[in-house]
Amino acid sequence: MHRRDVVKAAAAASFIPWLQPGPAWAAWRVNGDRVNGWLKELSRFGANPEGGVTRIGFSDADVEGRGWLVPVMRAAGLEVAVDPAGNILGKRAGTAPALKPLLFGSHIDSVLNGGNYDGDVGTLSAVEVARTLMEKGYRNRHPFWVTMWADEENGLTGSRGFLGEVSAADLARPGPRDGIVLADKIRKVGGDPAAMAGYRHEPGSIAGYVELHIEQGGILDRTHVNIGVVEGIVGIMSWDVTVTGFSNHAGTTPMDERKNALLAAAELALAVDRTVKGRPGRQVGTVGRFQVKPGAQNVIPGEVSLSIEIRDLSMETLASLWTEIKSAGDQIMTKYGTSWVAAARPTNVTALSDPAVRGVIDQAAKGLGLTTRLMPSGAGHDAQDLARIGPMGMIFVPSVGGISHSPKEFTRAEDVANGANVLMQTMLRLDQA
Amino acid sequence: MHRRDVVKAAAAASFIPWLQPGPAWAAWRVNGDRVNGWLKELSRFGANPEGGVTRIGFSDADVEGRGWLVPVMRAAGLEVAVDPAGNILGKRAGTAPALKPLLFGSHIDSVLNGGNYDGDVGTLSAVEVARTLMEKGYRNRHPFWVTMWADEENGLTGSRGFLGEVSAADLARPGPRDGIVLADKIRKVGGDPAAMAGYRHEPGSIAGYVELHIEQGGILDRTHVNIGVVEGIVGIMSWDVTVTGFSNHAGTTPMDERKNALLAAAELALAVDRTVKGRPGRQVGTVGRFQVKPGAQNVIPGEVSLSIEIRDLSMETLASLWTEIKSAGDQIMTKYGTSWVAAARPTNVTALSDPAVRGVIDQAAKGLGLTTRLMPSGAGHDAQDLARIGPMGMIFVPSVGGISHSPKEFTRAEDVANGANVLMQTMLRLDQA
Repeated sequence: MHRRDVVKAAAAASFIPWLQPGPAWAAWRVNGDRVNGWLKELSRFGANPEGGVTRIGFSDADVEGRGWLVPVMRAAGLEVAVDPAGNILGKRAGTAPALKPLLFGSHIDSVLNGGNYDGDVGTLSAVEVARTLMEKGYRNRHPFWVTMWADEENGLTGSRGFLGEVSAADLARPGPRDGIVLADKIRKVGGDPAAMAGYRHEPGSIAGYVELHIEQGGILDRTHVNIGVVEGIVGIMSWDVTVTGFSNHAGTTPMDERKNALLAAAELALAVDRTVKGRPGRQVGTVGRFQVKPGAQNVIPGEVSLSIEIRDLSMETLASLWTEIKSAGDQIMTKYGTSWVAAARPTNVTALSDPAVRGVIDQAAKGLGLTTRLMPSGAGHDAQDLARIGPMGMIFVPSVGGISHSPKEFTRAEDVANGANVLMQTMLRLDQA
Repeated sequence: MHRRDVVKAAAAASFIPWLQPGPAWAAWRVNGDRVNGWLKELSRFGANPEGGVTRIGFSDADVEGRGWLVPVMRAAGLEVAVDPAGNILGKRAGTAPALKPLLFGSHIDSVLNGGNYDGDVGTLSAVEVARTLMEKGYRNRHPFWVTMWADEENGLTGSRGFLGEVSAADLARPGPRDGIVLADKIRKVGGDPAAMAGYRHEPGSIAGYVELHIEQGGILDRTHVNIGVVEGIVGIMSWDVTVTGFSNHAGTTPMDERKNALLAAAELALAVDRTVKGRPGRQVGTVGRFQVKPGAQNVIPGEVSLSIEIRDLSMETLASLWTEIKSAGDQIMTKYGTSWVAAARPTNVTALSDPAVRGVIDQAAKGLGLTTRLMPSGAGHDAQDLARIGPMGMIFVPSVGGISHSPKEFTRAEDVANGANVLMQTMLRLDQA
C-alpha cells in the first residue's frame, strides 16, 4: 500500500458511516488467555533465577525460543521460513496477489538479565492475530507477513538485514562480548549470510508495518491510559569504547606512577552523564556495558571496555552531545596517562511513524473502547528500520512502574490482550482499506 | 629454633672466624638452568595468549600446575603431602629430630592474567635448593619443609590455614567471583576442610621461614641492586563492596528518574584514589575488581560489585583512610539514590621480618658477591602469616621495569639463580647455626 492509500484508509475508517459500527470483523477479539499462555511458555527459554530471561540474540536460549515459536506460527496457518538475515517470516497469502504485503511482528531476543515482555508481547500477539483470523476464516486481501526480527537488542540486526543494510564488514565483525562474528551467528539460526548481499526490500515494497510493543517507560501506567500511539522513535548514536592504561601490582606501584584505566573510564562515564544533563531537553545518555581487565583486587586495572549511548528525537542534538563528550574524554585521558578509542556503532536515525497509520491505530483502539495517547518512543525498535520502506505504526501497552530490561518488567494480561486486539483491528482496517 | 637461637646464628655467621671463609658448603651453587627450565615448564599451566598465566588458586589450571609440581618435589628427595588446608608440603627429615623445622617456599597460583614469576620463582627455587642439597649429600640438622602455599593471591588462604586461622565461616563463604565455597575448593586440591578445625601451628613451633620472591616493584631494577632484604610487609585492609541502584531501560528512563549504580560506583572508585593521595606517605589504594550488572549497552546498570584495597606499614593510617572513604561513600550513595554494603575481608597486619634472619640473608648474599638493599614489601606474602609463628625473612630479586601481576612480569635468569643461591646459603647458615 502506498502512503496515499493508507491515508485514504484512515479517512475511510474514521468518517464513512457504514464502517461505523462497522462490518462483522469489528466485533472479533483475540484469545487473550492463549496469547498470555504463550508468553509464559516462551519465558522458559533463557529463564534466569530472578524470574526474567537472558535470551541474547543468537544465543542457545534464543535458538531454543525460536525453535518453540516456529510450530506455534505454523499452527496459526502461516508458512514459516527463515530469511537470509535470520528473521523468521510467517506468511499467509492474500486474495489480491498484486497487493503489497502488510507486515506485523516484533522480536523475542532479550538483553542480559531482561524480562518476559519486551518483544515477546508484540511477536506473540502478531501470531495470535494470525491464529484468530484463521479461526474466523478471514480472507486477507494483502499478503500478511508475521515477522520475528532477529537480534533486536544488539542493534536491530534482523530488520537491518531485511532492508539489505548489513554490510560484509558487519558480518565479519566479532561481537564485543563474545568475539563471535555476526555471519556465524546468523548461520547458527538458519540464516544465509552469503545470500545477504543480494537480499533487500526497497522503499515502497511493503504496504505497511505495525508493531505492538510494551512502552518500557512509565507514562501509560502513571496516567492510566490503555494504548500509546507512537509518533516517532528517537535516534540513537552509540560507541564501543576501549580505555587503555597499564596493569600493574596494586601494592608495589606508587600512586603517582600509575596509569589506571578504571579511574579514567569512571571519569568518562561521569562526563557522559554530566554532558547529557547539561542542557534542557528529553535526551538521555548511558554507559551500560563496563568491563574491567584484569579485574582482580590486587591489580591496577589496565583496560576498560565500555559502551556509550545517547538518544534524542533530534539528530543535531546527538551530534553536538558527542562533540562535547569526545572533548571531555580527551582531557580525561591526558590527566590519567591513558588512551582511548571510540568505535561508532550503527546510528539509528530518528523515525517518525506514518500519520495515517497512527490514525488507524487510534480509531481501532477507540473502537474497542480503549483510551489512547500520542507519545514518542525513547527505545529503539525494528519499526524504525521498516519506516524507511513503508508506512509504519507502533502500538504501546503499559509497562507497570515503567520498568523494562529487567526481570521485574511486567505488563498485565488484560493490557496484552488489549494490545493484541488493537493490532488485529488495525491490520483488518489496513487490509480492508 | 627460638628467636634467641637465630640471633646467635646470625652472630656466629657474621663474626666467628672459622665461618669466614666458611665450610665446604659455602661454595655450593644451585643449578640455575634447571630452576629456570622449571619456571618455563610451570608456565604452561593456565598460559594466556599474552605470554603470562591465569592460574587462579583452586582453578583447573592451578590443579594441573600442582600436579606437575609434586613429582618435581619428590625428585628432590622430599616426602610430599597435601595438608588439610590444601598446601603442598615437601619434607626432608633432619639429623637432630628434636630441632624444629626450617620452612622455605612460596606459592604457584596467580592473579587473573598474571605473569610467570610471582610465587613461581620462590617455590621452584626452594625445590631447587632441596634438590641441590640432596645431590650434594647434605645432611640437614633441622627438618626441612619446602612449602607451596595454596591460593596466595586471594588472601593468603593456605598460610592462614596452616596457622589455623581459616574459620568455619570462611570455609562456607562463596567466592565473590565464582560463587564456589572455599571448603569445596580446598577439597578439590586434596585438602581436608573437615580436619582444619584441629589443624594449626602455634607460635614457636617452627625454627624459621624464609621466602624468596620477585620484588614486584621497580626499586632493585632501577638502582641495579641484586638482592632485596625485606624489612617488613605492609598491612592490607580490603573490602568486597556492592553498590545497588535500579536497573532500567536506557532509552525510556529520564535522566532524573535513574538510580544508576555505575555512576555511584565510579565516584566511589575516584574517592578511594583521591583519599589515598590526599595525605603524605607511601600508602596505596586500589579498586581492582569492578563488575557491572547487567552490563548491556541499553540498560542502566543496577548493581556494581567491586573491591577496595588499601596498604601501608602503619595500621593506624589504614584505619583512618577507611573512615574517610566510608564517609565519602555514604555521601555518594545519597547523591545517586543508591545504597552500598562493604564487607571487610581478612586484614593482613603489617609484619616485620626477624632482624637476625635479615642479617643472615644479607651475609649470605654478600658471601656470594651480591649487592643488597634493605627494603619494605608493598605486596602481601604468605611470609607475613608465618612471621606470627617464628622468625621470618624474605629475599627479593629484581623485577624488570617493576612490572608484576601482568603477563609482562619478568625476572632475568641470572637473578633467579642469584635468589636461589641466596636462599640456599641462608638455609644452610640457619641450619648449621
